[in-house]
Amino acid sequence: MRDFSIDHSPLALNTATLGHNVEGNGAGWSPEQVIDACAARGFGAIAFWRREIGTRAREFGERTRAAGLEVCGLCRAPFLVGPLAPKPRSAAMDDFLASIDMAAELGAACLTICVGGVVEGSHSMRDSLKMVAEMVAEAAPRAKAGGLTLALEPLHPVYGGNRSCLVTTRDAVDVVEAIGHEAVTVAIDVYHVWWDLGLAEQLRRLGGDRIAGYHLCDWLADTNDVLLDRGMMGDGVADLKFLRAAVEAAGYRGYCEVEIFSAANWWKRDPNEVLDICLERFRTVC
Amino acid sequence: MRDFSIDHSPLALNTATLGHNVEGNGAGWSPEQVIDACAARGFGAIAFWRREIGTRAREFGERTRAAGLEVCGLCRAPFLVGPLAPKPRSAAMDDFLASIDMAAELGAACLTICVGGVVEGSHSMRDSLKMVAEMVAEAAPRAKAGGLTLALEPLHPVYGGNRSCLVTTRDAVDVVEAIGHEAVTVAIDVYHVWWDLGLAEQLRRLGGDRIAGYHLCDWLADTNDVLLDRGMMGDGVADLKFLRAAVEAAGYRGYCEVEIFSAANWWKRDPNEVLDICLERFRTVC
Repeated sequence: MRDFSIDHSPLALNTATLGHNVEGNGAGWSPEQVIDACAARGFGAIAFWRREIGTRAREFGERTRAAGLEVCGLCRAPFLVGPLAPKPRSAAMDDFLASIDMAAELGAACLTICVGGVVEGSHSMRDSLKMVAEMVAEAAPRAKAGGLTLALEPLHPVYGGNRSCLVTTRDAVDVVEAIGHEAVTVAIDVYHVWWDLGLAEQLRRLGGDRIAGYHLCDWLADTNDVLLDRGMMGDGVADLKFLRAAVEAAGYRGYCEVEIFSAANWWKRDPNEVLDICLERFRTVC
Repeated sequence: MRDFSIDHSPLALNTATLGHNVEGNGAGWSPEQVIDACAARGFGAIAFWRREIGTRAREFGERTRAAGLEVCGLCRAPFLVGPLAPKPRSAAMDDFLASIDMAAELGAACLTICVGGVVEGSHSMRDSLKMVAEMVAEAAPRAKAGGLTLALEPLHPVYGGNRSCLVTTRDAVDVVEAIGHEAVTVAIDVYHVWWDLGLAEQLRRLGGDRIAGYHLCDWLADTNDVLLDRGMMGDGVADLKFLRAAVEAAGYRGYCEVEIFSAANWWKRDPNEVLDICLERFRTVC
């Protein structure tokens, strides 16, 4: 395994960790401030959210690279299926393609996809995943042309009803294999997979080339909100070394992206403090 | 698959569905009222909770059987490990043995075990499960002597931090195999496993003889509480036919036990209405 205590260049920041730069969360930093603060600390990359980018994708991408960082990802495609997806399906597809185009302009390595919940009335994750696979397969050539991959992110099974009918790494690998397009990959997030003792086996099946990202946070033993109460690495029950070993055993050597949704704790702190602690924990417990 | 529209005798009630008979939930029925109401509707069995039984285990067991019903289970052993388990370990073990003795007196077919969360400070589900396996192996002969099985229940991964380091059917089968005692079985609950497309495969590995129970409810797409907002069968996104097919393909022919924790909805209704709807849904959507 890589030794982050002597080289933390694989550390990346997902801007959600600073409250999406929203005024009132942290200091409400602009993307420029985030870029400069990450560069000053030797982070290797940043993942942005569409809401921060607006029409300035090219500009922010260039700004990031000029500061010596990469754009490791863009969050995210719209929900493709289920109760929270744009309707009709063509509207979801249009927004999906628009998000791919934004990621390409930004120069992002991947676009993250949270696929959306079980199709209304279907009572079937299996059928819902088939619809997801069709839509992702349709969009894959556009992603390839834009120089990025589509990163299917299996979400924690608690989101199965409305946010993601894709809830296991096993199913994500099955979908990737069913689609069989080089621009379709998987993102692995500690929050979503920490409980899965079969993770290493599934990632071996996938292979490191098809792992688009590895997202860091922790699962708090007494979590009080499954959307906005993620923990800082080391503060929870996840076996972070075991998880990274699984990802690296599959061949992954990319960025480790800190993504902490924490409305009541980390989003209320000074972003400088949050970044400093991310860095210290990355070097010691990840 | 069995046809419940023509024979609903495999239907069982877990008393939690009526708010644990607590005054203020439903009508605050006594165990005697629950037994009579289930018998009148042709239910096949009842699963009780320790809190309702007190020192009257033998009496309630006989009362149930005299009404033509079986006692399919007792809920439940204490958490064995993790932050919510009695401390020290010997105290958890003592209460575990006391719950086995109560189940034996009641004449229950099994004692349900929710194993408890990740051991504090361990950051390891694997090590926590090893401790669980040791404790269950130690208690298994007492269960066998009492004529019941110890039903390990994998809980939904959302409970991994504090209530159950056992969160997949796969892990449950691994633990059962590691212990290798005939009195150690698994209980499958729709709420906890509905998202697992690998369920059938794992249950085949387990075999029907080691499935101690199949619990019914539904997962609501927009659930607002992962403890007390379960849905009635048919009201959520779970593929109930697919799940029962998986259980029966493994050889299970036992009771299907309705267990709905629903503080804001079903617990507020007249228990007679709740039981009538359970029966109707059992015959039509399960």
